[in-house]
Amino acid sequence: MDVNSNRSEDLSNNGGTATTPTEKVSMEIHSVCLPPKKSTFQKLKHRLSDIFFPDDPLYRFKDQTWCKKLVLGLQCLFPILQWGSHYHLKLFRSDIISGLTIASLAIPQGISYAKLANLPPIVGLYSSFVPPLIYSVLGSSKHLAVGPVSIASLVMGTMLSENVSPAADPILYLELAFTATFFSGLFQASLGLLRLGFVIDFLSKATLVGFMAGAAVIVSLQQLKGLLGIVHFTTKMQLIPVLTSVFHQRKEASAITLIFLNYLCPKFWSWETIVMGFSFLSLLLTARHISMKKPKLFWISAAAPLTSVILSTLFIFCIKSKAHGISIIGHLKQGLNPPSANMLYFNGQYLALAIKTGLVTGILSLTEGVAVGRTFASLKNYQVDGNKEMMAMGLMNMAGSCTSCYVTTGSFSRSAVNFNAGAQTAVSNIVLATAVLVTLLFLMPLFYYTPNVILAAIIITAVIGLIDYEAAYKLWKTDKLDFLACTCSFFGVLFISVPLGLAIAVGVSVFKILLHVTRPNTVLLGNIPGTHIYQSLNRYKEASRVPSFLILAIESPIYFANSTYLQERMLRWIREEEESIKANHGSSLKCVIIDMTAVTAMDTSGIDMVCEVKKMLDKRSLELVLVNPVASVMEKMHHSNILDSFGTSSLYLTVGEAVDDISASWKPHP
Amino acid sequence: MDVNSNRSEDLSNNGGTATTPTEKVSMEIHSVCLPPKKSTFQKLKHRLSDIFFPDDPLYRFKDQTWCKKLVLGLQCLFPILQWGSHYHLKLFRSDIISGLTIASLAIPQGISYAKLANLPPIVGLYSSFVPPLIYSVLGSSKHLAVGPVSIASLVMGTMLSENVSPAADPILYLELAFTATFFSGLFQASLGLLRLGFVIDFLSKATLVGFMAGAAVIVSLQQLKGLLGIVHFTTKMQLIPVLTSVFHQRKEASAITLIFLNYLCPKFWSWETIVMGFSFLSLLLTARHISMKKPKLFWISAAAPLTSVILSTLFIFCIKSKAHGISIIGHLKQGLNPPSANMLYFNGQYLALAIKTGLVTGILSLTEGVAVGRTFASLKNYQVDGNKEMMAMGLMNMAGSCTSCYVTTGSFSRSAVNFNAGAQTAVSNIVLATAVLVTLLFLMPLFYYTPNVILAAIIITAVIGLIDYEAAYKLWKTDKLDFLACTCSFFGVLFISVPLGLAIAVGVSVFKILLHVTRPNTVLLGNIPGTHIYQSLNRYKEASRVPSFLILAIESPIYFANSTYLQERMLRWIREEEESIKANHGSSLKCVIIDMTAVTAMDTSGIDMVCEVKKMLDKRSLELVLVNPVASVMEKMHHSNILDSFGTSSLYLTVGEAVDDISASWKPHP
Repeated sequence: MDVNSNRSEDLSNNGGTATTPTEKVSMEIHSVCLPPKKSTFQKLKHRLSDIFFPDDPLYRFKDQTWCKKLVLGLQCLFPILQWGSHYHLKLFRSDIISGLTIASLAIPQGISYAKLANLPPIVGLYSSFVPPLIYSVLGSSKHLAVGPVSIASLVMGTMLSENVSPAADPILYLELAFTATFFSGLFQASLGLLRLGFVIDFLSKATLVGFMAGAAVIVSLQQLKGLLGIVHFTTKMQLIPVLTSVFHQRKEASAITLIFLNYLCPKFWSWETIVMGFSFLSLLLTARHISMKKPKLFWISAAAPLTSVILSTLFIFCIKSKAHGISIIGHLKQGLNPPSANMLYFNGQYLALAIKTGLVTGILSLTEGVAVGRTFASLKNYQVDGNKEMMAMGLMNMAGSCTSCYVTTGSFSRSAVNFNAGAQTAVSNIVLATAVLVTLLFLMPLFYYTPNVILAAIIITAVIGLIDYEAAYKLWKTDKLDFLACTCSFFGVLFISVPLGLAIAVGVSVFKILLHVTRPNTVLLGNIPGTHIYQSLNRYKEASRVPSFLILAIESPIYFANSTYLQERMLRWIREEEESIKANHGSSLKCVIIDMTAVTAMDTSGIDMVCEVKKMLDKRSLELVLVNPVASVMEKMHHSNILDSFGTSSLYLTVGEAVDDISASWKPHP
Repeated sequence: MDVNSNRSEDLSNNGGTATTPTEKVSMEIHSVCLPPKKSTFQKLKHRLSDIFFPDDPLYRFKDQTWCKKLVLGLQCLFPILQWGSHYHLKLFRSDIISGLTIASLAIPQGISYAKLANLPPIVGLYSSFVPPLIYSVLGSSKHLAVGPVSIASLVMGTMLSENVSPAADPILYLELAFTATFFSGLFQASLGLLRLGFVIDFLSKATLVGFMAGAAVIVSLQQLKGLLGIVHFTTKMQLIPVLTSVFHQRKEASAITLIFLNYLCPKFWSWETIVMGFSFLSLLLTARHISMKKPKLFWISAAAPLTSVILSTLFIFCIKSKAHGISIIGHLKQGLNPPSANMLYFNGQYLALAIKTGLVTGILSLTEGVAVGRTFASLKNYQVDGNKEMMAMGLMNMAGSCTSCYVTTGSFSRSAVNFNAGAQTAVSNIVLATAVLVTLLFLMPLFYYTPNVILAAIIITAVIGLIDYEAAYKLWKTDKLDFLACTCSFFGVLFISVPLGLAIAVGVSVFKILLHVTRPNTVLLGNIPGTHIYQSLNRYKEASRVPSFLILAIESPIYFANSTYLQERMLRWIREEEESIKANHGSSLKCVIIDMTAVTAMDTSGIDMVCEVKKMLDKRSLELVLVNPVASVMEKMHHSNILDSFGTSSLYLTVGEAVDDISASWKPHP
């Protein structure tokens, strides 16, 4: 291989006569290597294993006996086997406390979120029973509290009810909800099985901040229905129809304050509901505020929803004869989850809708679940395997869809309470499921008088935490384009629709990457005197130009999308350099050095571009030198035979060596 | 600024006691600078000027008098003013020869391509008259020969005739063609005006190779209609309907050879046409082959089409009474381009179709024109301004749409002939237009007996050169993913449709970029003994590990799309390193150095990831050091305050300095 020959010997003759811009002259020149040869198949294998198995999931299985491998395999499929064997009473004590705490939160939230998805409240409780049990066997997070969550409920409710009315056709609606749950589970499990977990990475944090804030605004406004006791309400989710629904019904009224207006128009707004709703809302918000200020008092906000439910139910029970304006939950069926596999809907006109809803809610709940799992894992310094989590959540949703549950995942708020209450293992989820079981079997009649307004207050309190304006401000401060993605998803969700808003935000994020690739930075380098370091002239004041050389660093892969730009930009740098030399009567430009360290990839257009520039510079009698091409670029240049036109003498390992060697070669031989 | 403090003084004390893996110890430590401060507005301005004005188009205007600026401005708008002033007779002699040569090619091709677009043949001649004149005034290429081209004609013909039948409704079809031309011109001119020229870069060379080959296959098969004299033929463009059209009509026949079959089924195939077509086709292909072997004989292939037209016309004229089976062009209207501004169609049901066709043909013809212009410019070492070319082509098409022309651009084949015939300036286009003018005014009756089959033969000869299997093989050799994009666009065009095939190919190209970003390389670095150079251990056999250090280079920007992956991958490197240390009883790992030279950008997710890794390594008492972050990354880390948690001592300018300094700090103080 020509390029591998070491040039230090050729240069030892004229090494002594060279004077270079750096003081310490080391004339040993290192040649640029090609990477070790690999066949196309080997490369493909390496690339695929890097794409699908970046975490090398089988490393534990290496050098193990057959029997040990079986045990490890089972532990891998069912993490409970791994931690279950050394589970002891002390851990159980912590888990039972945290499990009961999240149960007190999960029961009212389950009922509320089911209402958010336009489902019967009991489905929310069903969904807090089966999925946590399955997750505790399959999941790898210790702190995730599983159950229905606001975002997924909201999205499912909106997407389905825009096509099927939950009031007019409740059975079909329920069927579609279970089918969507099934598809979301199928999608999640396939992503995990095919190890395509990186798909959820494309919902960047910036996108999610905007999306969640947008969704929270919409949900809060929609809860005005419950909070103000409005009977007729839009099923749409965009800002404008919701606001219209709230205010349209009393547009004839013209007074100023809410309560006052209400007296004028009692038919649509009910003052009893408003008073009750706002009192409990302020109670819940105060509890949340206290817990946020003092994380040790987490139990205040954890206990608040159940307390509110109990208090309000008691209150309504006491004044039941007088409270006509306040709508209540009413009769709830006692008993365990009925099977619902026969309700799955695999053909007919709404199948596409169910699949679409399943995909969107699936990816959203997956993103939330995995992110929450990772957050708490990193706090306790253990790792959560994304692909395994996806399979766990997928199976839990698929099983859920057959047992009257709708989409569930790890909820951020409940997981935080779980973590703060000292949960140690997934047993807290089993405790939670047991508590829900007891509720389902024996306590359902107690919810008869629970007013709907309290559920609205619980939902508002839960979603208000999703508006993370501090994160948005931080995005603005650090990265304006991330902030743009954030606002796009916020307004997209608010004014267009959930799937479109998300798609726009992902589009903006991808566009950001493409923009960076399309218009990459090129930096003019100079030498830091007394060293072999070459750095940006613009950034390091001590760096100085090397006469007769133009040293450029390209800060991006060279692709079809930027090869034309880079060619123009390089020629402009050369033109500007020549003009400034002419103006200052400096020594004429002889050599252009391209530092390729940051050119991490190149495609065929990039190679053509380099050839083109080489030819152009040859015509102007300028030397073109490439420094430190990375392995894949070197390989491609080798395959395309352009290294022949460059020759060995145009490739160097460092800028310093290139400058030393080339300026030495200009000196007349002794 | 903390990070700017020079640490060389702090370290001068223990510098003497340090022993480092490199032999030449230079304990001068350089600190990492922040880039010069800029306001958000300045940054935005800089970024925008980099996006829209990378070539600094106004640099000629600097430091000029007001009057000179006006002249330069006019020259900029009308390049003819620039070269026209020193035009002389010798140049004109070259231009007149090349102009007449391309005219002899352009006239038969114009008629043929118009038929390809299902337009009356005369429109092809009109389109070879006005656009070249306009381009010669506005265009900046000296060698571009302007006129109708095969790809754009084909695409326009297909897209329009799938919705409107050119036979049943010729006026509407013509209106739509002119309207599409208008919109393609409008689109081209706007791209140039808004300096969005980079849009065409997204049609990478790989995509175009596949697209052109696919289009050429389809066009050649479609020409079987003319070549075999088939009367009923599909208007679709996909492979299957075309093949069905060719063979379906005689499926009852069962003999073997073409001619033989033809006797069995004379109603649909005409043997006279076939014999004539294939003789002239072989003549044309031979001429093309000769010119390709010996570029000096370019005139053979340049003259062949006109010769064929003349010969075949004479032949038909002589045997006119007997040649019933051969269809001829027939009567062509004499006279100049009639105005067609009143035929533009700005409302009604087909407007969307016209706009869509305009966009697709506009971007395709732009890509071809700009690429051809650049190719010949680089051969003669002058530059073509992409944005200016777009405006020239846009205006030329907009003007064309008002003077009965359809989409035109610079044709590769005619430009090559123009170049080889010695064209010096755009005057060759004026000569071409003049020759077409004479033809339009006086020679039209001569085409009466020209057989259509000869036009089919000319088209096949022209498009067969578009199948560039050598380029495809080169793509396969250098870049497998580029080859994938190429095959996708080939089969997409062949089996689906032109716009979808193109969209798929662009999607594959973009996916390639995203794949590179999603799964970037991380490389383990080692020291080349006796130097400060750190290079890939895998690639440079002489490089060796530095004990107690893990030195990683990340070869990609850190974005939301790869931050999770990079975090996992880094932790895996650390785990593997620790395991190998345990196996070999080496000195324990103390410090992880990340070489950030190739991390050319970072978003908020990337910053969170770095924080996260820092925290994790802190818990394991491992030091994390970042080396040489680029300006934008440094700035973002500064804005997000994570530099505080790193501290000055965790940022170095080179890996060598980091290793020296940190290993020195581990030694006990004297």
